[in-house]
Amino acid sequence: MGSRPATEEDPDEAFVVGTAAASGGALPGGFGIGDDTALLDHGELVTTDTMVEGVHWDDRLSPADVGWKLVAVNVSDVGAMGGRPRWATLALSLPSPLDRPWVEAFFAGLGEALREWGVVLVGGDTTRSPGPRVATLTVGGVALHPIRRSGARVGDELWVTGKLGRSAEAFFATNPRPAALAWFRRPHPPVRFGAALGEAQLASAMLDVSDGLARDLGRLCRASGVAAEVDPAALPSDRPLAEAVAFGEDYELLFAAAPEAAGAICSLANMSGIPVTRIGHILEGAGPRLRGGASWPAPRFDHFPEASR
Amino acid sequence: MGSRPATEEDPDEAFVVGTAAASGGALPGGFGIGDDTALLDHGELVTTDTMVEGVHWDDRLSPADVGWKLVAVNVSDVGAMGGRPRWATLALSLPSPLDRPWVEAFFAGLGEALREWGVVLVGGDTTRSPGPRVATLTVGGVALHPIRRSGARVGDELWVTGKLGRSAEAFFATNPRPAALAWFRRPHPPVRFGAALGEAQLASAMLDVSDGLARDLGRLCRASGVAAEVDPAALPSDRPLAEAVAFGEDYELLFAAAPEAAGAICSLANMSGIPVTRIGHILEGAGPRLRGGASWPAPRFDHFPEASR
Repeated sequence: MGSRPATEEDPDEAFVVGTAAASGGALPGGFGIGDDTALLDHGELVTTDTMVEGVHWDDRLSPADVGWKLVAVNVSDVGAMGGRPRWATLALSLPSPLDRPWVEAFFAGLGEALREWGVVLVGGDTTRSPGPRVATLTVGGVALHPIRRSGARVGDELWVTGKLGRSAEAFFATNPRPAALAWFRRPHPPVRFGAALGEAQLASAMLDVSDGLARDLGRLCRASGVAAEVDPAALPSDRPLAEAVAFGEDYELLFAAAPEAAGAICSLANMSGIPVTRIGHILEGAGPRLRGGASWPAPRFDHFPEASR
Repeated sequence: MGSRPATEEDPDEAFVVGTAAASGGALPGGFGIGDDTALLDHGELVTTDTMVEGVHWDDRLSPADVGWKLVAVNVSDVGAMGGRPRWATLALSLPSPLDRPWVEAFFAGLGEALREWGVVLVGGDTTRSPGPRVATLTVGGVALHPIRRSGARVGDELWVTGKLGRSAEAFFATNPRPAALAWFRRPHPPVRFGAALGEAQLASAMLDVSDGLARDLGRLCRASGVAAEVDPAALPSDRPLAEAVAFGEDYELLFAAAPEAAGAICSLANMSGIPVTRIGHILEGAGPRLRGGASWPAPRFDHFPEASR
């Protein structure tokens, strides 16, 4: 989700096709951007994410959860650039006639999340649709020192916040634990911690783990032109490896940092109440691998086809 | 369309319901904003508009027309605030598998319009949807001197750009003229002229005529706390009154200005190649009326229910 890079390996297919079609006169703008949000002038950030009923959520999420999650996935992208979210616009397509209880609950969850992250809803557009409910949030923010995916350097250490695999557990386990269900329904990305990392210039590269570490670490390596070795025993997860790294919806931060920044990172994490774990380091070469030589897990828990998310 | 005010008279019903629901803790932000775009700090503007297949377009529009129109309706909102559009993000929900010819044509039209108005596409999100195609564009811009709807003063003259009723003709006439069809499919709002009016501080209040003069002049009067008298004979339209004022999709500018600004407005219009017409003036009181005492036309050409657009 988010401002997806249009590369062969990570196709947002419609954008790839569209860019090619429009390139006769050169489509203005930054389709090639490979970060969680687009970076405008003066550290301004903007990102957009859509959730479609039946595709991005089902009955496991209440309408209030959907409202919360729509905010969470967007502010996660802003925090992952080292930015602080400021404003949002909402576009909502709903069946007619209006289902007032649904709308009330959706806005209640949306409002809770907006308050949580200090985001001001500045405008929107509501449309009728005969199809499923579709909600698009565009969030703007600002970063003093934006952190891109492309800045990882050989020798950097690789960090991740929080725990991995909670949404996978909620999605796949027969009896998921309440904490896993709670994170799946109402993820709480460490947005302020991401902003603080940026402001203190402690991270060299960062993105949020929205599609699983397997895929997202691949993106970091590709953007930075480096390899990464991950210690599977160090991963902050009590789930099977595939669930921990290959499902996604973790909304944790994955970042690279120089070894000498480790002390400051731990202090900042302690102050922020955000757990951080060193999971590996950056090497010369291309792409991620596991320590011990096991092959890097394929992002096989593709609950929805990639081109359609 | 656009950032709709949440008032009883002009309900964006879902937003009204949602705001009420969320107001326990007070939904952060500017739901009450009554302008075409939200106004952030430092003259930053942001607006969002969604088009749903089967609701906002049908076979009369080609996929390229849809792409063009999505840009046009958004930049129209920015120009109507006296601003210049700068960037856009696109959220696109499409059926699976991807209809490549549709996507190519859509992006071709979108790209044409982005280039026309100098807008950079900075990011986006594509999602699969089992429902109709849904396209949301969010456009950011900047205004040196933003023009709101609320600044009209008693004694001001009332102006409109271009012609009214072309989209109505395209929509209702048995044999619409090519110029009407062209405007309906590919409206060309006078965005730079709106920005120039703002920069020269020539208009006291402005909005774009997206829902018809009947409705949009009512909005200007309400926001400014004034009445307006319109000379029906002065309206720049060769259509019946109801089509000229009550259908919408004109994407022309409606603005109020002090009488002493008339000369400068005409000069600017001449330089810009934008026809302008004085259609009436601002009075004490409330709401619009017609010179001669005929009642103000109801916005009865509601091709889609108001709450759903």
